[in-house]
Amino acid sequence: MGRGISGFKAPGRKTLLASALAVALVALGTAAHATVAAEAQFVLNTFSFLICGALVMWMCAGFTMLEAGSVRTKNASMICMKNIGLYSIAGLAYYLVGYNLMYVDVGQWIGSVQFLYGPSADELALLAGDEGAQSAVVDAGSSKMSGWFFQMVFVATTASIISGTLAERVNLWCFFIFTACLAAVIYPLVGAWTWGEGWLYELGFKDFAGSTIVHSTGGWAALAGAIIIGPRLGKFRDDGSIKPTPPSNIPAVTLGVFILWLGWFGFNGGSQLALASTIDAVAMSIVFVNTNLAAAAGVVAAIIVSRPILGRVDLLAVLNGAIAGLVSITAAPDLVDHYWAVVIGAIGGVVVVGGIKLLEVCRIDDVVGAVPAHLFAGIWGTIAVCIAGGGNIGAQLAGIAAVGVFVMAVSSIIWLVLKKTMGARVSSEVESLGQDAAELGIEAYPEFMLMPDQDDLDDLRRDA
Amino acid sequence: MGRGISGFKAPGRKTLLASALAVALVALGTAAHATVAAEAQFVLNTFSFLICGALVMWMCAGFTMLEAGSVRTKNASMICMKNIGLYSIAGLAYYLVGYNLMYVDVGQWIGSVQFLYGPSADELALLAGDEGAQSAVVDAGSSKMSGWFFQMVFVATTASIISGTLAERVNLWCFFIFTACLAAVIYPLVGAWTWGEGWLYELGFKDFAGSTIVHSTGGWAALAGAIIIGPRLGKFRDDGSIKPTPPSNIPAVTLGVFILWLGWFGFNGGSQLALASTIDAVAMSIVFVNTNLAAAAGVVAAIIVSRPILGRVDLLAVLNGAIAGLVSITAAPDLVDHYWAVVIGAIGGVVVVGGIKLLEVCRIDDVVGAVPAHLFAGIWGTIAVCIAGGGNIGAQLAGIAAVGVFVMAVSSIIWLVLKKTMGARVSSEVESLGQDAAELGIEAYPEFMLMPDQDDLDDLRRDA
Amino acid sequence: MGRGISGFKAPGRKTLLASALAVALVALGTAAHATVAAEAQFVLNTFSFLICGALVMWMCAGFTMLEAGSVRTKNASMICMKNIGLYSIAGLAYYLVGYNLMYVDVGQWIGSVQFLYGPSADELALLAGDEGAQSAVVDAGSSKMSGWFFQMVFVATTASIISGTLAERVNLWCFFIFTACLAAVIYPLVGAWTWGEGWLYELGFKDFAGSTIVHSTGGWAALAGAIIIGPRLGKFRDDGSIKPTPPSNIPAVTLGVFILWLGWFGFNGGSQLALASTIDAVAMSIVFVNTNLAAAAGVVAAIIVSRPILGRVDLLAVLNGAIAGLVSITAAPDLVDHYWAVVIGAIGGVVVVGGIKLLEVCRIDDVVGAVPAHLFAGIWGTIAVCIAGGGNIGAQLAGIAAVGVFVMAVSSIIWLVLKKTMGARVSSEVESLGQDAAELGIEAYPEFMLMPDQDDLDDLRRDA
Repeated sequence: MGRGISGFKAPGRKTLLASALAVALVALGTAAHATVAAEAQFVLNTFSFLICGALVMWMCAGFTMLEAGSVRTKNASMICMKNIGLYSIAGLAYYLVGYNLMYVDVGQWIGSVQFLYGPSADELALLAGDEGAQSAVVDAGSSKMSGWFFQMVFVATTASIISGTLAERVNLWCFFIFTACLAAVIYPLVGAWTWGEGWLYELGFKDFAGSTIVHSTGGWAALAGAIIIGPRLGKFRDDGSIKPTPPSNIPAVTLGVFILWLGWFGFNGGSQLALASTIDAVAMSIVFVNTNLAAAAGVVAAIIVSRPILGRVDLLAVLNGAIAGLVSITAAPDLVDHYWAVVIGAIGGVVVVGGIKLLEVCRIDDVVGAVPAHLFAGIWGTIAVCIAGGGNIGAQLAGIAAVGVFVMAVSSIIWLVLKKTMGARVSSEVESLGQDAAELGIEAYPEFMLMPDQDDLDDLRRDA
Repeated sequence: MGRGISGFKAPGRKTLLASALAVALVALGTAAHATVAAEAQFVLNTFSFLICGALVMWMCAGFTMLEAGSVRTKNASMICMKNIGLYSIAGLAYYLVGYNLMYVDVGQWIGSVQFLYGPSADELALLAGDEGAQSAVVDAGSSKMSGWFFQMVFVATTASIISGTLAERVNLWCFFIFTACLAAVIYPLVGAWTWGEGWLYELGFKDFAGSTIVHSTGGWAALAGAIIIGPRLGKFRDDGSIKPTPPSNIPAVTLGVFILWLGWFGFNGGSQLALASTIDAVAMSIVFVNTNLAAAAGVVAAIIVSRPILGRVDLLAVLNGAIAGLVSITAAPDLVDHYWAVVIGAIGGVVVVGGIKLLEVCRIDDVVGAVPAHLFAGIWGTIAVCIAGGGNIGAQLAGIAAVGVFVMAVSSIIWLVLKKTMGARVSSEVESLGQDAAELGIEAYPEFMLMPDQDDLDDLRRDA
Repeated sequence: MGRGISGFKAPGRKTLLASALAVALVALGTAAHATVAAEAQFVLNTFSFLICGALVMWMCAGFTMLEAGSVRTKNASMICMKNIGLYSIAGLAYYLVGYNLMYVDVGQWIGSVQFLYGPSADELALLAGDEGAQSAVVDAGSSKMSGWFFQMVFVATTASIISGTLAERVNLWCFFIFTACLAAVIYPLVGAWTWGEGWLYELGFKDFAGSTIVHSTGGWAALAGAIIIGPRLGKFRDDGSIKPTPPSNIPAVTLGVFILWLGWFGFNGGSQLALASTIDAVAMSIVFVNTNLAAAAGVVAAIIVSRPILGRVDLLAVLNGAIAGLVSITAAPDLVDHYWAVVIGAIGGVVVVGGIKLLEVCRIDDVVGAVPAHLFAGIWGTIAVCIAGGGNIGAQLAGIAAVGVFVMAVSSIIWLVLKKTMGARVSSEVESLGQDAAELGIEAYPEFMLMPDQDDLDDLRRDA
């Protein structure tokens, strides 16, 4: 009943129960019926994974639009390249290595170190015509391949968080290498400890759809990169002021947030990991309702608090409020009192607005506000499980700390190695010119006349 | 079998029948089977509500893109703010008050005046581990929470219609207040009379997915606002001519229409309110087919008639033709002869093109053509039920008139109060400068060089 | 079990088997169960068609964004008009004529020549209240109307391929006439030979979801048009050089590709044509996984090979790599070894990059690269069936050749007739000015200042 409770590692646990019941019913002479019921469960659970997984895949388009609209036009093509690349690389890396590390034969710390995610032999036998494999397939509760698909899109979400924070200066190849490491190792290890039923799972750590496991992991990796790679040139001026770098395309940012909101129904709803029983369908319904209420509350809270904190009703804060509301409820979207979802999402909206301010004070340059929205709100959401969802505060804090220390440490090492060897960030010439023209040889909007950058004008004036 | 016939208030009516049948079968010694069949129905109906509801939620992104592309760039950020805000506020208001007014203990006129939509006690008990609650939950036919989710996204659709009409001049806070009133009271009352099985329902009024209940309600509220708030500055010149205000981003408008078209499959299809029987699945299929045919016919009709009526093949008229086709078929998408869907949608396409012309003649400023597309086509669609779907013309006209009078009256009062107290529209300075820069402190496309507004140039010339 | 094997013509073949089994079980005294199981299958198969079909409909938005972002701004509105028009016209033409030609009473070459796709009489009777029709309806395995919907969106996909290739110069009305011919006759005939179980089907030709039937058909029709209508003015200069015509809006192109990727899950997944058995659910799962792996591999391959072939890491090649990966796997997405999907998709990514180069060498002007992505990758994918999916190379080559010769011949005749009678392409004045201003009387981005076209500047200089 949801990752927060039983984990993906044991899909069909309840289904097995149902099968056991079925076996009992066989004794009463209703064999045929029970068998088919299990098959219908199998079909429904599988279909749910596929549809919810497709919605989560769609979130990558959301991140792409959000980021392409948030960066300056001179880097908008490059952020598109990074996003379509990261989705592809993350999925392949998870196929090659990651899934096995996360879910196959997990002990306390790590799963199986072997190449290529292997589909279920029973399912392959069934496809090859061996009808005798049918019952073994059905007993698994859902198609293992549909489960893999659902897991794969989660790792892509984690990677998507990073590209926004580091936009406009991280080197393309370094970013792709980091993405491969994240999807092949970092995220799978965090996943092994939790959804893979490793040590954090045994400690009682609860994170239904990944406030910590997905969103904070991505957020920590992004934070490490932002600190090591440093801010964009001229972002923080010597006089302590901050150069405004407004999003170049607000409707694109807004579209991105709506895409994320839609995709989140699959993200949280599908994380129930089953659909085909009354309790699963009810749980998936409460997840949808709470997810929506939390996001809405995040928006309204950000509308209210952005004026006192940021000095104006800030659209970007409001859009990040939606994301923060969604991230906040992700650890416990199955909580039973809807009003807690409103409260948790609203606090998430406040957290993100404050977090944007905090990063500015710390002079950390996060182009899209992904660290406040995914990391800070993710921490809050993981703690909030204790309020409304029955979590244990010690286990929750242990999970937050363990993931934070691990992801920050490993990410920092990787970013530092990349910095020493490949440079990690582009040259200042490329950064000034923009990665689109300098590295991709194209412009995002080549026919539109653009305003000259004020800093470039100042430089020209100084030189003259 | 669809809201048009039995209404949401009594979900599971057919399911109860099925349960009764099941009980009968028990007597024949096949008890187990019947029970499980009911559970499978429950799961399928619930999943249908969730998926269709998510598609309807996605329509809000469609309205946002349509409107952000239709306004001038100087108001494109503000329309994004209004749309993400309205979706959030409408959902929360419906949670706080609206749903209970619409569906709980509805008499002739109004449901229950109480705060907070309350989830089913049986469902909460089941989630808490009380397996004894299972049968009561299943007997409801679908999860009450999934039904709430599906209803909630409809109120957001209603509110979305208004933001487009009043774009570029309505004050943000007034718009949010009106949205809250609409979602908390106006729409729920209209809904109580109809889908809530109040007096219009008893009169035999039929509106399958809401040509009147959703689209005309939104359209009337928008029309009231457009009249009271008045046109944009300079839109209608003293010499009788009309200032052209072309959409600033045509691909965004087009994307918005495609999003709406996709979402409409959930809007109309989900309004069958059930999936899990042969007849429901067939009905949902006919709804999908008719919905698509009507929209396609609306497009083709608008292509054909826009030249004689508007003087050219007008893309905006064609895009509105799609929406008008969709709105027109919404009252009876379950009609059995597909060619009627083609005819109804095509007439919708003509209605919207003529309606755009009519509003211009009446000097009513509807920025996106939402009144022709949602109100005029909604009226046509509600009447069309009599042709193809078996509606009673008297009941249909009574419903159209009652909803029109009520929504126009209440909306006008609210807009007038807002006008007297808060101003309802922005100052002429803000309007000239644009709401983005003047109120939000950002620009939608800050790096792009924009053409100076011709009127501003004229003013400068006059001053010089 | 998928179009590649049994074809749409006989939906429910397996279901009928199930029914037969059910009848057998009746004899064992479990009648009620078997009947309901069949009904659940009917509901699930129908719902799968509707949801997957909606995803495929969404691909039209993907093509629209891809094309609107790829053309120069002066033709971006016209490409929106063409896309919303083509989707509508193709759907109506398929309703009027195409479906019957493709699926009703198909002999070797052609189905039934009669107007209006007719819904199942049994389904209409059931909707009209005749419960006796229930069993006949259920025996069909899924709602005939849901199947029609799923087929209809495929013809729209085929038509969408053409608009991109011929953008910026094809006359609107000629394009619409060609679209009607394609949807009413050309595609349905190709479909009749294959999925309609005509001569190519009997020969053993396998094409699961349409690498040849959909994508190559669209690609051949586009190629014929590109050759007959000719390149854009000035695209290929007399000195052998090529005028660069960079996409005007890269984020829109990228969004389009993500939309296509999402929609493809419905395109390939739904082509299993059934969901409601263990084997179908497993097959749909493997289709989702392979579809995603192939697209990801296409992206990575294009990243790797675009530098040696095109001289830089080319974002457009990478985006086309995703599409080519998707097209390549479409003929056999149900292959059982995932790594073959990676290989096939990767080769597709190489094919599209080479194909872009090839078209340039041949001086064929394909604005969006649709011929390389859909035709060349479609041919590759159809051949690849032999490697991994068990196809017969002779039958595959026969299918590729037959479809190529037929579609090229008929398309060429239609384009030539249109060229002789209506001109097929716009005047050079309209082409220079852009179709938006010259024909639609609008601009896609009227407020944005645009860079003057270099050629126009050269002309001015020459005149001065």
